[in-house]
Amino acid sequence: MANILIKDAVVVPMYESGGIRYFRGSVGIEGNTIAMVCSGDDARVEMFRARHEDNLHEIDGRGHALLPGLINTHCHTPMTLMRSYADDLPLMPWLEDHIWPFEAGMTPDDIRLGTELGVAEMLLGGTTCFLDMYFREDVIADVVDKAGMRAVLSTTIMGDNNLSFEKDLAALVERASCCGGRVTPMIACHSPYTVSSNNLLYAKRMAEKFGVGLNIHVAETREEVGIIREKFGKTPVQYLDDLGLLGPSTIAVHCVHLTDDDIRILAERNVSVSHNPQSNMKLASGISPVAKMVSAGVNVTIGTDGASSNNDLDMWEEMRSVSFLQKVTAADPCILPAWDVLGMATVNAAAALGLGDKLGQIKEGMLADLIMVDMDKPHLHPQTDVVANLVYCAKSGDVDTVLIDGNVVVDKGRLVDCDLRSLYDKVDARVEEIRTATAKRL
Amino acid sequence: MANILIKDAVVVPMYESGGIRYFRGSVGIEGNTIAMVCSGDDARVEMFRARHEDNLHEIDGRGHALLPGLINTHCHTPMTLMRSYADDLPLMPWLEDHIWPFEAGMTPDDIRLGTELGVAEMLLGGTTCFLDMYFREDVIADVVDKAGMRAVLSTTIMGDNNLSFEKDLAALVERASCCGGRVTPMIACHSPYTVSSNNLLYAKRMAEKFGVGLNIHVAETREEVGIIREKFGKTPVQYLDDLGLLGPSTIAVHCVHLTDDDIRILAERNVSVSHNPQSNMKLASGISPVAKMVSAGVNVTIGTDGASSNNDLDMWEEMRSVSFLQKVTAADPCILPAWDVLGMATVNAAAALGLGDKLGQIKEGMLADLIMVDMDKPHLHPQTDVVANLVYCAKSGDVDTVLIDGNVVVDKGRLVDCDLRSLYDKVDARVEEIRTATAKRL
Repeated sequence: MANILIKDAVVVPMYESGGIRYFRGSVGIEGNTIAMVCSGDDARVEMFRARHEDNLHEIDGRGHALLPGLINTHCHTPMTLMRSYADDLPLMPWLEDHIWPFEAGMTPDDIRLGTELGVAEMLLGGTTCFLDMYFREDVIADVVDKAGMRAVLSTTIMGDNNLSFEKDLAALVERASCCGGRVTPMIACHSPYTVSSNNLLYAKRMAEKFGVGLNIHVAETREEVGIIREKFGKTPVQYLDDLGLLGPSTIAVHCVHLTDDDIRILAERNVSVSHNPQSNMKLASGISPVAKMVSAGVNVTIGTDGASSNNDLDMWEEMRSVSFLQKVTAADPCILPAWDVLGMATVNAAAALGLGDKLGQIKEGMLADLIMVDMDKPHLHPQTDVVANLVYCAKSGDVDTVLIDGNVVVDKGRLVDCDLRSLYDKVDARVEEIRTATAKRL
Repeated sequence: MANILIKDAVVVPMYESGGIRYFRGSVGIEGNTIAMVCSGDDARVEMFRARHEDNLHEIDGRGHALLPGLINTHCHTPMTLMRSYADDLPLMPWLEDHIWPFEAGMTPDDIRLGTELGVAEMLLGGTTCFLDMYFREDVIADVVDKAGMRAVLSTTIMGDNNLSFEKDLAALVERASCCGGRVTPMIACHSPYTVSSNNLLYAKRMAEKFGVGLNIHVAETREEVGIIREKFGKTPVQYLDDLGLLGPSTIAVHCVHLTDDDIRILAERNVSVSHNPQSNMKLASGISPVAKMVSAGVNVTIGTDGASSNNDLDMWEEMRSVSFLQKVTAADPCILPAWDVLGMATVNAAAALGLGDKLGQIKEGMLADLIMVDMDKPHLHPQTDVVANLVYCAKSGDVDTVLIDGNVVVDKGRLVDCDLRSLYDKVDARVEEIRTATAKRL
């Protein structure tokens, strides 16, 4: 593994220093770790060069913004196979007549294929780490490992059956242990309304037993809130809190329909929230009270949700949607400014995943998960405010270099190690087969 | 001028035929006109080839979607110079303390420079025509002409002064007449609250005198509605209607705060609306009742607004925002489906500009304003529904070929005739100068 020097980029380290949010500077990487961050023509650049002269890869950062990799805190990655499969439909017919029947036809090989496609999309767009909620996460870990990506993968529990859950989780934990620290296992409970109380408590015990975090869809739709209220006389958040499921290693996904008391509980329990604005908009689930949560001190992060609902895995567009949707909803253009939103996709996300000391900022000693954005595009000039340009204008296609764990995985806009043509052919052929089989079965 | 054959693309002609919305096919172009549209291996492809064998440029359409160029119906193009200049601020301080003082320092050369930047951005993203509202539109026409673009340019009237208006409009009409039919002149009234009644009536007379259309910001903010109601006891739409300004050659921009009666008036007068969702969201103006307008039969189109409010000129993101924002607002995931939204950005927009018989569809006899989208990206596979992939997933950077009036202006993702490096340097330097001068003045 070569040491790397990224020279003369606009560094956006995601912390402020003396009111400065970005500066022209250089970053040195030793192994998988950020070893040097300095601005301007600091003498340390020459020292770093001298120290590694026989094993140094230099990357010219001019014309580029250098920032921490984006972290997507909610995805069902294999569902890329269902991209644009069934759009503009009401939620239940969408799920019951399209998504679930399609999923019933998916094999572990399909999970692998869909994950390969989703991972390729995320890497090219500058997402270096994602939190996945699906089944057979050991297979997903395999893809993540081979792609050199970072992920937190969560085996999902649904219904009242947990017969194979511990085995599946153990398989994930085992597989994750061989990924050089790049894969962290987690548990997912699908939601308060699709998992029995017994299984929620069981999941909590398993999280303790395996020492892992837990994520769960919460209060995504009005229907869900109605179901939980009718069954338990509580909001979904109150219900989960009473079961003891809410704590600092819990990530509550969606959180669209919350009471002020729910927000207070989330803040008090140090729960992190994964806000998925484009999914909530496209499925017409509702508008999450993000501004209120932020004011209450909740750690809010950003997720894309699966490609079947969104229909892509693009964190840049999600960032814009977070800010724009909150501004128009609150009738206040000042809230959720660019800097805060970029923080949600980096610093806050790392903290939510329990990786806040390693990821989400460009700091000496942290892991080298970094992205470079080519700022020499018409939509990124002038560069009056680089942070505003990044959050309000940059596109996933502007990312041209991605490093994860100190390795270059995207170079000049291309995946270093992926035959995309062959992947597209496999995906297109297999999706056609599953669709045909699904149509026959229905 | 070579004739062009685009072979084996997925053609999305923007009309349905027997329930078919796209097909594998080829398009032949003679001069500036679409001369042949056919599906599959039609014998007409060989005939077209034979007819033009000594002067034919063939473009391989495989792996690409071919669609009509996108039409942006609201832009203040020179304001790209103010991209990310002042974000996350309330409207009036944003305008009074930042935008207007900056504009006061802009010269006609700056209008040219900002237009060059905006035109480059729009072309690279597949926008082939735009409706501009600004000053010195003769200068803007010059840039559009040289770039080979198409535009409808409107000289703007504000306040109660019209001393130079007719001269400016005449200069635009004169300049437009030398653009080979690619530039159409129009009149813009800034808004009901910033233009006197006298000047609104004057603008109407000028529109009749010069035989041109008229566009105007209408009901963008609650404040505007309040001002007009206080002054005239009417809504902005009623007020303009009573002045006789609403008709089939009027484009009402924004239309955020409308009563049901306003919507009825817009429909009855055959007014077209330019909906600018991202601007309305980012400035917290409000949510336009687009679904209601569509139901009432209003011709709704899509605009980006200026880059100072949005902060880019990206019609792909606007399309998604149109659909997603309406779905979540109406709590109905079925409304504003992908096909309808793509129609707003093409067919509806062409009709709004009075160019519906020439633009907005891929039909024999229409003008060859066409774009090709590279579908071989991870976020555009599988291709279960090409229209949904285009509207919900495609990015401006996926556009790799753009033809306007039968000429290739973007080839393999690059502008055929523009030195971007030099443009960036000029823009960055000049913006720095204007900012410094503005800061000193304030």
